[in-house]
Amino acid sequence: MIGVDWGTSNFRAYRLAPDGAILERRAAPRGILQVAGRQFAETLRGEIGDWLDGGEDRVLLCGMIGSRQGWQEAAYVPCPAGIAELAGAIVAVPFEGARVRLVAGVSAQDQEGVPDVMRGEETKIVGLAPHFGGGGLVCLPGTHSKWVTCRDGRMMGFATHMSGEVFGVLREHSILGRMMRQGPTDWAAFDLGFARAGDPGGWLHHLFGVRTLGLAGRLDEAAAASYLSGLLIGHEVRAELPEPAVVHLLGEPRLTEQYARAIEGMGGRVRLGDEDAAAQGLAAIGARVDWSR
Amino acid sequence: MIGVDWGTSNFRAYRLAPDGAILERRAAPRGILQVAGRQFAETLRGEIGDWLDGGEDRVLLCGMIGSRQGWQEAAYVPCPAGIAELAGAIVAVPFEGARVRLVAGVSAQDQEGVPDVMRGEETKIVGLAPHFGGGGLVCLPGTHSKWVTCRDGRMMGFATHMSGEVFGVLREHSILGRMMRQGPTDWAAFDLGFARAGDPGGWLHHLFGVRTLGLAGRLDEAAAASYLSGLLIGHEVRAELPEPAVVHLLGEPRLTEQYARAIEGMGGRVRLGDEDAAAQGLAAIGARVDWSR
Repeated sequence: MIGVDWGTSNFRAYRLAPDGAILERRAAPRGILQVAGRQFAETLRGEIGDWLDGGEDRVLLCGMIGSRQGWQEAAYVPCPAGIAELAGAIVAVPFEGARVRLVAGVSAQDQEGVPDVMRGEETKIVGLAPHFGGGGLVCLPGTHSKWVTCRDGRMMGFATHMSGEVFGVLREHSILGRMMRQGPTDWAAFDLGFARAGDPGGWLHHLFGVRTLGLAGRLDEAAAASYLSGLLIGHEVRAELPEPAVVHLLGEPRLTEQYARAIEGMGGRVRLGDEDAAAQGLAAIGARVDWSR
Repeated sequence: MIGVDWGTSNFRAYRLAPDGAILERRAAPRGILQVAGRQFAETLRGEIGDWLDGGEDRVLLCGMIGSRQGWQEAAYVPCPAGIAELAGAIVAVPFEGARVRLVAGVSAQDQEGVPDVMRGEETKIVGLAPHFGGGGLVCLPGTHSKWVTCRDGRMMGFATHMSGEVFGVLREHSILGRMMRQGPTDWAAFDLGFARAGDPGGWLHHLFGVRTLGLAGRLDEAAAASYLSGLLIGHEVRAELPEPAVVHLLGEPRLTEQYARAIEGMGGRVRLGDEDAAAQGLAAIGARVDWSR
């Protein structure tokens, strides 16, 4: 079968063996926001038409392609949710010459009844689960970071933190960004920001400190972005780890390094997930799908 | 004398009697960011030249005009600071035909040694102080809200919260803004956001709830902005009012209404400050300045 992790910014396709091994892979900057006029079928054929011509006729897609802004909306599956619930909630989309199916997203409610949603991460967690015994805490840092509690390979609940997006809008559009230069992580500044998150005074006050430390000459332009990262990730990790725990971490290297530092700073331990988790999840769900429907 | 509250966006001038009474006032959208080529002297003459021609020759300016981006930088006076310290730290700027002076900003450090700064608010507090006996907690909500602890008419310390700016960048530039329509405050939504700030989970998670409540049909576009205001102001007020207190509140009506609701929601009591506090502060400081220097 073919598995595709089709998100907002990227298209990542895998040709998968029956045992889930990755036979071939390709990626393109063809996220759903880059597909003009909702030409999703044409885009799919353009990217992997040769695989289809070669005889593959099962295609499973996960990610924002299954959202309202994507090809077709695949309604969220509520927690608790695992591979069986996801395989049972697959949505078919019309496509000439192959069976194309969408993986649904997953929803949750926190204890106060506020809803939460994910789309794409559920497939990575399914792919990751066998590697960590299916129980524990998983963190997928990113624009909207997910913290997922798993048991017996199923997602029991989760919380989203907007840290990545808040970092981006503050850097690009707020007064804090005027004093920032991008570069590799400055770990001393990151640690200062992380420690600051544990101070009293509140986060809206902590944010202003990025500016005043700069004005006072105590944080230079190269360090300010790392300080802000440490501050935001510090607030996130403190909220999710009131007590030290093992965290299964999956994401881009720059982010997982920063999150690992923060998690370890709270006394937690980190296990890094396999970067091919999405492919493994697509293979695992695909093996359980009733492709005749 | 003439007093001018010259901020980032606005220019507000007052012709003041020796007893501090406002004889005449005018305002223009000529904040320092609107003055091209740093033509501050020319702008001042353009706005109040007729007052100068009429015989006034003392002009006291407060606000961002005294910042690095303004006419000339007037170094911050450290807390504790009151009228005497501010009158003693006045900075003269060259101007043909009148004595023009700048009020300095004020700086503080919190208990963790992180610096904080204000510029313009110190003058309002000096103007406000006689009305509240000079002791207590003052809140000036805005882009960068200030919470100031006063004793005997002096500022002992303060904290800035970036609530106004964070609200703006999230509304204009984040995914949360896509589901927002501006309008009058929806108090039911504001109260929900305010209550949410008291929940566990962390603010970066609370922010995502603005989106998910919208997706779930539980927060419409007209209510989402009020919910976000309640959430941000809720976080701010909770950090500043661990115990109920009387808060002297000074700012624009829309904001002071929202802050009053949040302060009262925490069991605090509100006293509204006089909107002419800046003029009163300029008059009071001007009366103490040694204009011969």
